[in-house]
Amino acid sequence: MKKIRIAIVGATGYTGSELVRILARHPHAEIVAITSESRAGERFSDVHPFFTGIADQELVPADRVETIDADLLFFALPHGVSMEYALRWKDRDVRIIDLSGDFRLSSPEVYEAWYPKAHAYREGFAQAAYGLPELFRDEMGDARIIANPGCYPTCSLLAAAPLIRQELADPASLIIDAKSGVTGAGVKAKEITHFPNVNDNFKAYGLKKHRHTIEIEEKLGKWNDAAMIQFTPHLLPIDRGILATVYALPSGTLTEKELTDGYREICEREPFLRWRDRPPAVKEVRGTNFCDLHATYDKRTGRILVLAAIDNLVKGAAGQAVQNMNLIFGLPETTGLDQIPLHP
Amino acid sequence: MKKIRIAIVGATGYTGSELVRILARHPHAEIVAITSESRAGERFSDVHPFFTGIADQELVPADRVETIDADLLFFALPHGVSMEYALRWKDRDVRIIDLSGDFRLSSPEVYEAWYPKAHAYREGFAQAAYGLPELFRDEMGDARIIANPGCYPTCSLLAAAPLIRQELADPASLIIDAKSGVTGAGVKAKEITHFPNVNDNFKAYGLKKHRHTIEIEEKLGKWNDAAMIQFTPHLLPIDRGILATVYALPSGTLTEKELTDGYREICEREPFLRWRDRPPAVKEVRGTNFCDLHATYDKRTGRILVLAAIDNLVKGAAGQAVQNMNLIFGLPETTGLDQIPLHP
Amino acid sequence: MKKIRIAIVGATGYTGSELVRILARHPHAEIVAITSESRAGERFSDVHPFFTGIADQELVPADRVETIDADLLFFALPHGVSMEYALRWKDRDVRIIDLSGDFRLSSPEVYEAWYPKAHAYREGFAQAAYGLPELFRDEMGDARIIANPGCYPTCSLLAAAPLIRQELADPASLIIDAKSGVTGAGVKAKEITHFPNVNDNFKAYGLKKHRHTIEIEEKLGKWNDAAMIQFTPHLLPIDRGILATVYALPSGTLTEKELTDGYREICEREPFLRWRDRPPAVKEVRGTNFCDLHATYDKRTGRILVLAAIDNLVKGAAGQAVQNMNLIFGLPETTGLDQIPLHP
Amino acid sequence: MKKIRIAIVGATGYTGSELVRILARHPHAEIVAITSESRAGERFSDVHPFFTGIADQELVPADRVETIDADLLFFALPHGVSMEYALRWKDRDVRIIDLSGDFRLSSPEVYEAWYPKAHAYREGFAQAAYGLPELFRDEMGDARIIANPGCYPTCSLLAAAPLIRQELADPASLIIDAKSGVTGAGVKAKEITHFPNVNDNFKAYGLKKHRHTIEIEEKLGKWNDAAMIQFTPHLLPIDRGILATVYALPSGTLTEKELTDGYREICEREPFLRWRDRPPAVKEVRGTNFCDLHATYDKRTGRILVLAAIDNLVKGAAGQAVQNMNLIFGLPETTGLDQIPLHP
Repeated sequence: MKKIRIAIVGATGYTGSELVRILARHPHAEIVAITSESRAGERFSDVHPFFTGIADQELVPADRVETIDADLLFFALPHGVSMEYALRWKDRDVRIIDLSGDFRLSSPEVYEAWYPKAHAYREGFAQAAYGLPELFRDEMGDARIIANPGCYPTCSLLAAAPLIRQELADPASLIIDAKSGVTGAGVKAKEITHFPNVNDNFKAYGLKKHRHTIEIEEKLGKWNDAAMIQFTPHLLPIDRGILATVYALPSGTLTEKELTDGYREICEREPFLRWRDRPPAVKEVRGTNFCDLHATYDKRTGRILVLAAIDNLVKGAAGQAVQNMNLIFGLPETTGLDQIPLHP
Repeated sequence: MKKIRIAIVGATGYTGSELVRILARHPHAEIVAITSESRAGERFSDVHPFFTGIADQELVPADRVETIDADLLFFALPHGVSMEYALRWKDRDVRIIDLSGDFRLSSPEVYEAWYPKAHAYREGFAQAAYGLPELFRDEMGDARIIANPGCYPTCSLLAAAPLIRQELADPASLIIDAKSGVTGAGVKAKEITHFPNVNDNFKAYGLKKHRHTIEIEEKLGKWNDAAMIQFTPHLLPIDRGILATVYALPSGTLTEKELTDGYREICEREPFLRWRDRPPAVKEVRGTNFCDLHATYDKRTGRILVLAAIDNLVKGAAGQAVQNMNLIFGLPETTGLDQIPLHP
Repeated sequence: MKKIRIAIVGATGYTGSELVRILARHPHAEIVAITSESRAGERFSDVHPFFTGIADQELVPADRVETIDADLLFFALPHGVSMEYALRWKDRDVRIIDLSGDFRLSSPEVYEAWYPKAHAYREGFAQAAYGLPELFRDEMGDARIIANPGCYPTCSLLAAAPLIRQELADPASLIIDAKSGVTGAGVKAKEITHFPNVNDNFKAYGLKKHRHTIEIEEKLGKWNDAAMIQFTPHLLPIDRGILATVYALPSGTLTEKELTDGYREICEREPFLRWRDRPPAVKEVRGTNFCDLHATYDKRTGRILVLAAIDNLVKGAAGQAVQNMNLIFGLPETTGLDQIPLHP
Repeated sequence: MKKIRIAIVGATGYTGSELVRILARHPHAEIVAITSESRAGERFSDVHPFFTGIADQELVPADRVETIDADLLFFALPHGVSMEYALRWKDRDVRIIDLSGDFRLSSPEVYEAWYPKAHAYREGFAQAAYGLPELFRDEMGDARIIANPGCYPTCSLLAAAPLIRQELADPASLIIDAKSGVTGAGVKAKEITHFPNVNDNFKAYGLKKHRHTIEIEEKLGKWNDAAMIQFTPHLLPIDRGILATVYALPSGTLTEKELTDGYREICEREPFLRWRDRPPAVKEVRGTNFCDLHATYDKRTGRILVLAAIDNLVKGAAGQAVQNMNLIFGLPETTGLDQIPLHP
């Protein structure tokens, strides 16, 4: 089979380096260009020294992408920057998988209500599809832009969507108490990511107003537009991993068996979802595209609990992006995504 | 002032060493005996080497306590062991502050429903009071046994009780998503506390059935016996600290100001409660008896959020025990508890 | 090509799970049995839950190995246990790669001087070769037992051997200040590996008498029997990784260029050795079979510094074992060992 | 006794906050001003929120110090800034304890050889004394500026100086392999201190040229000007703590007893030095002014090993500064420095 020719636009961040980690061992992918404006001329392994001897190609400015023959562009860019490139290359016949938040929401209006910037490419929304295969596989079709989901939304939706889709839970009762590792905050050193501020520490942030709230709600709206969530993110003193603890009230009578059968059945069908008899642990999916799931019903209190764990950089970003690539290029979704968790 | 003569029964665990850390610098306390069955004859600093040069006294078997003149016994013993000592010394004229769970619940029947052991000293419950001063200060009176609260209940009750006491929240709507450091699991090496199993990891445990659930519910029952909580503990890869994220539905109309005024007012009155304008962080109370609190109302979803942070070994154990000692011996509650957070 | 039929004897430890992690993706390996005495009858993924859906085969007692047709046995067993199995199966026509310390030293006498146990299979030494390919590739030949090197010796020898082999350094001047992650202490929870004893902590241990001292010295003796090392291990609050900081005095005049040219040349030749222009970091080799090297000469003090970093569970154990398998079965040494560092 | 009136110049860093942590509980100290240029007008607890309710005074610009009556100024300022203030206030009759590196070396010439900046106050050296009481107590006299030692030099000198002073070791044979927590790199977020770059990682840095090398050598020169050290710092994934592992060759015949008797005797005399029978651990001195010491002689190799552990922010900075304050104001050196290690 001919290899998919890939350009990765934006190389300095964690999603860029994870894309290379996965694609460098993908049997049907060929990375033809990796771009960086700030580090152009240096090698990829100068920016990410652990790639020494593995990925030493030169970084090129994004311009260069215009002159090469690529089948697919990954945008591993900050929020607000992807839209600029999507606009600039809007007439190119190439598919885009965008790992930023620029095309995840339903419209520029919703985007502008939750993000601080005017959207530069409002027409782009019509060409974009939301790339969470387990839930929206059939809706990607020929979309020019695949909006790769946020890390929290991936974990939260895989946990909560079955409750809404199968009408097991009251759509207004959802509470998502989510905890993320530090790589979710990006590669750039900030006060909040300074080691002594994180190590041996733990706290919530972004109460009531985190952008991923609307991303989760909108996608749940596919099944029930009354869905409204309480979303509370917390910062864990770990590198990778998100755990979402979801609380909901049942919409009617419910048994433990009805609840867990639903999740078990999904996990049997979906290669990256693993049913776990015990609460999942983030380290048990580290480095992989798995989402581990556990659900239970508390008869005493009448509440549903669902727990989901992912690696925010893999299933929450680069791994899911490659899964989307496989999907839209007609490969088995698991191709090149057979990493085994690194534990410990 | 004459010093309070203290015996600490049980020296090898974390609560024992924290009691010594605090009492060794308390202006009105004198430690006259520290007991250990397993390490009797050794020095306290042999068991806890960081006390070298600070607390080198010899550990004695618990028997020895019978021959000394003590005003107060601290039981820093495992669940199920304290009751044996309380029974054995039931006729001694000495007060006891028990850091185990043996006398925290309302009756032996409730105890036996949540703990795996028959209670050996059923009459003890009549002599016991629950030692959470901020909420039950007036009920300790002359109780012979002060049942020092659990770490999760301390944090959870300080966060949630105002909602119930002031009738701000529906008592059946409470969800407490709690996260604790590893010292909460005790000093003994277990598979779950093995460094490679905790480091860079995070998970929930004890879903639906953690013993602290009933402890929290019963104490909230003082104000409203319809109180029912969903309590979910998680294990953080840190040494010390509990963060409780509490969700509730208001019982009627509520404004942000009404909610926060209530908490601010309590924090002004109580020396160990600190109102925080932002979500609290566990490291900001490390080593101290503080409980940091933050509350907010989400108009969009109609939900109350309260966050509380404590050091599980201090406000959640030894610090609160000393606060109780101060209280029952007529000292200002803050005596000897002026530690400043160790940050970073 | 016919697959190599492999039995892994001993499945519950870290070296066992790392062998499965690597071999499950090795193109020419087939795991036909994994044994465990304590967990026989359970699935491999019951013992190591992160393997759920990846390696769910049943664990069998070691007896079972006698009835299967295997080409190669990996012994992932504690020190002192491997020798029992090697003895028991001494007449079987099967090659053994032993990850314990039982056959690493030159003789049973040396073994007994440094290990606390009488050696049960003294004749085994005559059939054993030391499996550090970069240094002893040509000496493995048809050895029935490949003694897979210790983690510290792997890192220390790859750093220090060039100094002795190329007569750059005084063989009696070697100091190896080594620092290891906690997985080096094994899978079993002990006081020293209890999270609160390791986290935010650091210390040396085993001064003057660590068993790896003699393993390093003996192997250096191949080039100069005056080699004598000062070896000091320290415990790092991390999961994986060893950093060895080596100090030596030059044997004659030396320039920076002479020193670094030697190391660069080796790194160009050896696929798993990476020359680094800056001091290596353990996280940059995590999960891989790489050994990152840096060397420099301090003109001011007249001393040589060499730094080496490995993942103790991969190049220091299971990865090197697979490299040895590749070697003795005539495959390229890198087969199945193309893992990319997991960073961060 | 009249309290010592103190101004702390520079409040935003770790040394500033540690000074306040210690001085706020010092029985004979009164903090009359805390300055900050960047955060003037805010409260100290705005900058360091864990001080909420403990130290809420307003930060003032350094100018304000000129108008107040202070007995002592602590300079908790970056290297290169202290000298500016020392110059500006050179005619004020007030003593200064400077926690930067600006006056630690013997002359401006030496300073300029190791630091990147021209020294702005060359005359200041004549008024400065090196403030390591255990070694240079008698030389501080009436020095206007006490140059508070660097963190690595404190730990290294307390470990190594006895070997030189008592002529036990060859002064040219000293190797100091040192490992420090991240707070040693300061409060400011940098790439090297970004959590994912430190967590689960370990590496050396500053080989051959770290500025503390000359500080250590010069001070050892007091006893033997042939002292020359190999100093190699490493970055530990912990907040606080330095461990120095010192290697030396004996100057003549030496026994274990001669070596350890020397150290034991010093530890008996010095309240902050603790002799340990086993290798010290950094967590066992956390939050305190202790330096834990262990020494041993390896007969097999003929080498001396000395290990020392300190908290870099306390004995390595603010604690030692307060010890110096006590000393020059005639108080017992231990006044206000009775903190007990926070462990775990």
